[in-house]
Amino acid sequence: MSQQATIADLVSFRRDLHRHPEPAWREFYTTARIVDELETRDLDALYVGPEILDDDERMAVPDDDELGKWFERARDAGARADILERLAGGYTGAVAVLERGEGPTVGLRVDIDALPITESDDSDHLPAAEGFRSENEGFMHACGHDAHATVGLGVLDAVSDSDFQGTFKVFFQPSEELVAGGKAVAEGGHLDDVDYLLALHVGLDHPTGEVVCGVDGFLAVSHFRAEFTGAPAHAGAKPEAGHNTNLAAAAAIQNLYGISRHSDGATRVNVGLMGGGTATNIIAEESFIEGEVRGETTELMEYMEDRAHTVIESAAEMHDCDVDIAVEGKAPSARSDDALATIVGRVSEGVDGVESILESDELGGSEDATYLMQHVQDQGGLAAYVGVGTDHPGGHHTRTFDVDEETIRIAVDVLSESIGRIAADQP
Amino acid sequence: MSQQATIADLVSFRRDLHRHPEPAWREFYTTARIVDELETRDLDALYVGPEILDDDERMAVPDDDELGKWFERARDAGARADILERLAGGYTGAVAVLERGEGPTVGLRVDIDALPITESDDSDHLPAAEGFRSENEGFMHACGHDAHATVGLGVLDAVSDSDFQGTFKVFFQPSEELVAGGKAVAEGGHLDDVDYLLALHVGLDHPTGEVVCGVDGFLAVSHFRAEFTGAPAHAGAKPEAGHNTNLAAAAAIQNLYGISRHSDGATRVNVGLMGGGTATNIIAEESFIEGEVRGETTELMEYMEDRAHTVIESAAEMHDCDVDIAVEGKAPSARSDDALATIVGRVSEGVDGVESILESDELGGSEDATYLMQHVQDQGGLAAYVGVGTDHPGGHHTRTFDVDEETIRIAVDVLSESIGRIAADQP
Amino acid sequence: MSQQATIADLVSFRRDLHRHPEPAWREFYTTARIVDELETRDLDALYVGPEILDDDERMAVPDDDELGKWFERARDAGARADILERLAGGYTGAVAVLERGEGPTVGLRVDIDALPITESDDSDHLPAAEGFRSENEGFMHACGHDAHATVGLGVLDAVSDSDFQGTFKVFFQPSEELVAGGKAVAEGGHLDDVDYLLALHVGLDHPTGEVVCGVDGFLAVSHFRAEFTGAPAHAGAKPEAGHNTNLAAAAAIQNLYGISRHSDGATRVNVGLMGGGTATNIIAEESFIEGEVRGETTELMEYMEDRAHTVIESAAEMHDCDVDIAVEGKAPSARSDDALATIVGRVSEGVDGVESILESDELGGSEDATYLMQHVQDQGGLAAYVGVGTDHPGGHHTRTFDVDEETIRIAVDVLSESIGRIAADQP
Amino acid sequence: MSQQATIADLVSFRRDLHRHPEPAWREFYTTARIVDELETRDLDALYVGPEILDDDERMAVPDDDELGKWFERARDAGARADILERLAGGYTGAVAVLERGEGPTVGLRVDIDALPITESDDSDHLPAAEGFRSENEGFMHACGHDAHATVGLGVLDAVSDSDFQGTFKVFFQPSEELVAGGKAVAEGGHLDDVDYLLALHVGLDHPTGEVVCGVDGFLAVSHFRAEFTGAPAHAGAKPEAGHNTNLAAAAAIQNLYGISRHSDGATRVNVGLMGGGTATNIIAEESFIEGEVRGETTELMEYMEDRAHTVIESAAEMHDCDVDIAVEGKAPSARSDDALATIVGRVSEGVDGVESILESDELGGSEDATYLMQHVQDQGGLAAYVGVGTDHPGGHHTRTFDVDEETIRIAVDVLSESIGRIAADQP
Repeated sequence: MSQQATIADLVSFRRDLHRHPEPAWREFYTTARIVDELETRDLDALYVGPEILDDDERMAVPDDDELGKWFERARDAGARADILERLAGGYTGAVAVLERGEGPTVGLRVDIDALPITESDDSDHLPAAEGFRSENEGFMHACGHDAHATVGLGVLDAVSDSDFQGTFKVFFQPSEELVAGGKAVAEGGHLDDVDYLLALHVGLDHPTGEVVCGVDGFLAVSHFRAEFTGAPAHAGAKPEAGHNTNLAAAAAIQNLYGISRHSDGATRVNVGLMGGGTATNIIAEESFIEGEVRGETTELMEYMEDRAHTVIESAAEMHDCDVDIAVEGKAPSARSDDALATIVGRVSEGVDGVESILESDELGGSEDATYLMQHVQDQGGLAAYVGVGTDHPGGHHTRTFDVDEETIRIAVDVLSESIGRIAADQP
Repeated sequence: MSQQATIADLVSFRRDLHRHPEPAWREFYTTARIVDELETRDLDALYVGPEILDDDERMAVPDDDELGKWFERARDAGARADILERLAGGYTGAVAVLERGEGPTVGLRVDIDALPITESDDSDHLPAAEGFRSENEGFMHACGHDAHATVGLGVLDAVSDSDFQGTFKVFFQPSEELVAGGKAVAEGGHLDDVDYLLALHVGLDHPTGEVVCGVDGFLAVSHFRAEFTGAPAHAGAKPEAGHNTNLAAAAAIQNLYGISRHSDGATRVNVGLMGGGTATNIIAEESFIEGEVRGETTELMEYMEDRAHTVIESAAEMHDCDVDIAVEGKAPSARSDDALATIVGRVSEGVDGVESILESDELGGSEDATYLMQHVQDQGGLAAYVGVGTDHPGGHHTRTFDVDEETIRIAVDVLSESIGRIAADQP
Repeated sequence: MSQQATIADLVSFRRDLHRHPEPAWREFYTTARIVDELETRDLDALYVGPEILDDDERMAVPDDDELGKWFERARDAGARADILERLAGGYTGAVAVLERGEGPTVGLRVDIDALPITESDDSDHLPAAEGFRSENEGFMHACGHDAHATVGLGVLDAVSDSDFQGTFKVFFQPSEELVAGGKAVAEGGHLDDVDYLLALHVGLDHPTGEVVCGVDGFLAVSHFRAEFTGAPAHAGAKPEAGHNTNLAAAAAIQNLYGISRHSDGATRVNVGLMGGGTATNIIAEESFIEGEVRGETTELMEYMEDRAHTVIESAAEMHDCDVDIAVEGKAPSARSDDALATIVGRVSEGVDGVESILESDELGGSEDATYLMQHVQDQGGLAAYVGVGTDHPGGHHTRTFDVDEETIRIAVDVLSESIGRIAADQP
Repeated sequence: MSQQATIADLVSFRRDLHRHPEPAWREFYTTARIVDELETRDLDALYVGPEILDDDERMAVPDDDELGKWFERARDAGARADILERLAGGYTGAVAVLERGEGPTVGLRVDIDALPITESDDSDHLPAAEGFRSENEGFMHACGHDAHATVGLGVLDAVSDSDFQGTFKVFFQPSEELVAGGKAVAEGGHLDDVDYLLALHVGLDHPTGEVVCGVDGFLAVSHFRAEFTGAPAHAGAKPEAGHNTNLAAAAAIQNLYGISRHSDGATRVNVGLMGGGTATNIIAEESFIEGEVRGETTELMEYMEDRAHTVIESAAEMHDCDVDIAVEGKAPSARSDDALATIVGRVSEGVDGVESILESDELGGSEDATYLMQHVQDQGGLAAYVGVGTDHPGGHHTRTFDVDEETIRIAVDVLSESIGRIAADQP
């Protein structure tokens, strides 16, 4: 693939990323491939890894062993060593910049990470049938971020090739699936001068040909991991000597779900993961729970977070255990600005293949694009989260998820033309 | 080593077993080595694996993959292929028989399995210093069963070489650590004609030179594993659709510890292991808890078991989940008969190196030798569980546990002379 | 007071009711006084007690002792014996009917019961200062139902005196505070031909002079009382013999609050009351919990109710107890029809003393007027719940609550004129 | 009755006390009657109420209203006003002293309080049939303390009439049922010079004619009452504003029962009473739990007490509530001295009507006579708790409990003769 990629080039690029899915902060191959492509373009600036991230805000970064393993895997898969070196330590992602004279600064945010899901090898599953199924067994692009990254490249080319006036930046954001990368990118500096921001998601249960101009209903979210430490003891001979972390964790779980509903709006709580202990006859010395709280607003999420921490700490104390609570990912709520959504809607009417345009829809989940949207809105800019439908055989986050590649073309057209119109209209 | 092993032979044999620790039902190398030695003796009968076990009563047998892995490991370590074949499917253990004319049938039970503990590699730790540390990383003879098996051989030789009159059987029992093998051996047929049974344990916090003639205070025990199955759901978008197994497991844990104390005597309950879920934002679909209940008597253990099952099943139902409870190990309580303990005590007085003799002591834990003891007692025989002290630097079930090898000689003398006296006196 | 009551008459009547507050199904004095007044009017029909209620749908009816006590108290306070007799057994409330030629049937629903709250005797509290404080110590009209009943009379007189064409019915409904009377009135037959229904509430944190034309945001609600029965035992001597209802109730409480939030909208759960046991050293044999679940829609309430019953039953089973769950009150959600609210708003503009008109507001609580509203709407009619503001010094359900009596006049005007307009316009 | 009561006098006295059962610290009538009788004897000293109690150690004293009510009731029942005045404030109980020359000081402890149980009025129930059923409805001598007090008088007379040499004291102790009076009497000063102490209990499932010379197996006990304070809120409109004490109490209950068993011996825990909240739709602002912990030894009880307080405080904190924990009664464990029990046994052989003598038996419950026993033993004296069997139709603490009055005579003989022998032998 070289500058001004054809749709065929983009499809081929997407399939390459699909074959090499990488989870949060481990997008070494992915970033290297994106940067490799970007370097063939006539960009005004290209920032990589540590240059785009606020180091204090990276959440849920894996340990060095885990990072090293994926680093090696990327190298073995053929990623360029010179780029990889810039990503060492899990500093993934990139920002590409075009400067085209006077005009506003417009940003596009796409995310690039994959999920710990084993991809279907059924012959009905197109990536399996066509030979681009995941080569990183146990991991999969099951949420379309391979397509997102590809659309980022395509829009860059299209804007570059248009009469766009102003500055255009594409943010290739790492670690969205853990809502662990958005804040680091939002605080990384490159968003500070952005006047208008679009973020993209494909699918979301909308078919190919449907566009959602301004997605709303983002739940603010906070992920936590609580590690309980107690004291082991033989459960038969000396049970009273144990400080039982399994019991502390169970008390925490029971009471976390019991945090009161809130009259200001929807809240959520889940302990998705738990584990602890070493043997049936030993009082457990170490246990953990991992979960999340959400709120319809950031304030509601923070209410849940405060209560959750109190519950967890009291549960530990109740059973003479210690606990360490880490926040492992976080995203605020946000709203799409109508002024941008209106432009997206107007533009979409003229895009080939678009058959249905929805002004808005509720996400009902969480996304850390909200950090970027909020950052732009906080400094007086506008932001919208655009959904571009795609026929996906399996649901998001399932092993049979796939993207109708026709969507890539539609998304490039909708977004690049919207960006042109935004720069022209400056709503 | 050949027939009539010297103490040096026995020590060398014990170190060989120590280097190759194997957990429950995976004692392939261990059984093969024992059988290899036994075949050099002039035995009247030798039964191996499936010939000594009641197939319906084996508990906690690992799956085929796990068994296969250890089978291969034993082969690679040099175990005889012809013996290994007889053990396929995890049918480990052996029974050796000497017939020496008219007289009672006396049995000796020793256990042979190891623990999932990583052995110390500290230079203070003798097996590390002397080169016989575990070669199966992550597993270790941390409870002296390597010495037990060795003593079994030594006593066989000593009895064979004595003027013992009657029948003598040594039971090399697999899978004691999970209390999962005792019942299968007890019901395997070879115990049906045993009139007197001794069982051996070294250490138990008694120093080298101390003998406990009849250990008591066995807590009856039952191990359970409960697997909860629910339904997953996205914790943000559709929380009500989940059937939350982490929550069910937490309710079970809380209420298991709350099972009422019993006025008839001591009881215990522990959930030693727990785990569940896949991701923070998914309602957990599968969780498990693994634990145990104990009682000072078998009835008390059964009271706890009944209540535990009710609690677990109700906790599942409470959260619209299913649960499958498996009993993974079990042992009754038992008492050592005074008549045998008295003989052991009398004999020990004359054994070189014995400096202290205790009539009795409380184990305060569980042991499935009780199945064998109870089987013999139920048919009118007598049984005693003999403790032979050993200086052990680390506690039982810790990574620095070791056996003072002088104990092997003392145990062989105490047990072989007791067996001779028992046959002579027929108490 | 006689037909065509003056405002002074109405105020005096309200103060009489205020002096004699009676809780659910015990509104003997209140009903007798209302009926006594109604009999002085030229009505076309007057139905009392059992004639207005579906006997199968009365919820939370007190036992005979309790009913008898209040019956005697009403008699002692001077209620007419002939009317009281018709109310025996707790069949309280009345329906008054005016027939004025051709035209639609319009209904007005007012509620008449009081609360178990001790009224303030502070000199700042007007009823105390002016001598009409509650004479039924421990009970109080702390939610304005004394004013509601009074407005019912006033509107009857005003409609009677107007050129209203059609049929007009006033429903004096008992037992709203427990949401226990609405369904029995809704199913009592007199609502079957009602085309338009208005329901009234004063206050709701709106000041005198403010009208809310169509209140919305009713949470569907279901009250439950669960009575656990176990087996007592001496906690020291025989703890295992107890079937512990305090423990079962605690497990139920913990897990009730843990019922999952729902993505379709707001839900609530509360265990407001609990009790159990007889002595510290006895395992509790009887315990109860009383609580409620709510939902933004009737379906959400029913989801909560189903889950709550499962939790309670499983908690009982978990601890070998029985449980009996009674539904003690219930109300669906409902919405005010815009067409009626619009008329109320238009009319209010011309009412003296009305200074602020709100199209709508959220109640955020529950009300069993919704049964009547839903009944009318189900048969094709329209309904609206009208709020008429009043300056109330203390909040609803507090001991210093009081009604600004100017509100009575405003409410009579707003409602009677709305009823005339509705009959005329038939929206 | 006058000095040197006949058995008929004693029976009549017991029936008088039985008709006037009074619970802990409210034994006004009972104490007044005892003192009235004592004043007719030729005593060397008589101490009443405040003169026998350490004021700092009285536990679970009711409030003034409650005390006042029982005080009046005692006056109305004919108790002497001059004695009652000395008991004001709930200072009940008495100590009678005989000084008979040189010799040891021997004490006898009897308790005098009744239980909150409604006595059977069945014609099978002797007190009902014979007209001495409880006149304090809802309260009952259901544990034989009416007989204990009576035996105290009888023994005093018998010792007085014998050739006993030394000092003899009878302790009429209040408030045993709540284990709330023993410590105050033990620390009250009159026990400091006691060399030998006997305590009495009738029944305990032993028939008339059986004597238990030295009861053992007292569980140390501590009663607690925890009062949770939170914040109320409307459960529908503002649930997040509540600090839910019902939820905090439920978390406490669940986790109290989960306190680990102890390898040193038997423990117990029970939450016998719970209550909280005001209405189904209000988040509970106040709740309480009342319970107890026990241990086979005082140390085990203290282990349970420490853990219980941690659990309760953490449960409050977990739900943003405050909690106040009061210890409402307490008793240590204790053992009967064999030397005294031996004398009781020897003496009993010669007592008319004694047919069976048990050296010892396990109480399996708690008693605050242990405070007095321990006090004597701590200063080098000896103590024994003597059981005198009685045929009791209903169990202790049930509404059909009664005492076979023949027991009174047997107990007087056994105890008075034992006291004489103890003084003579000084074991």
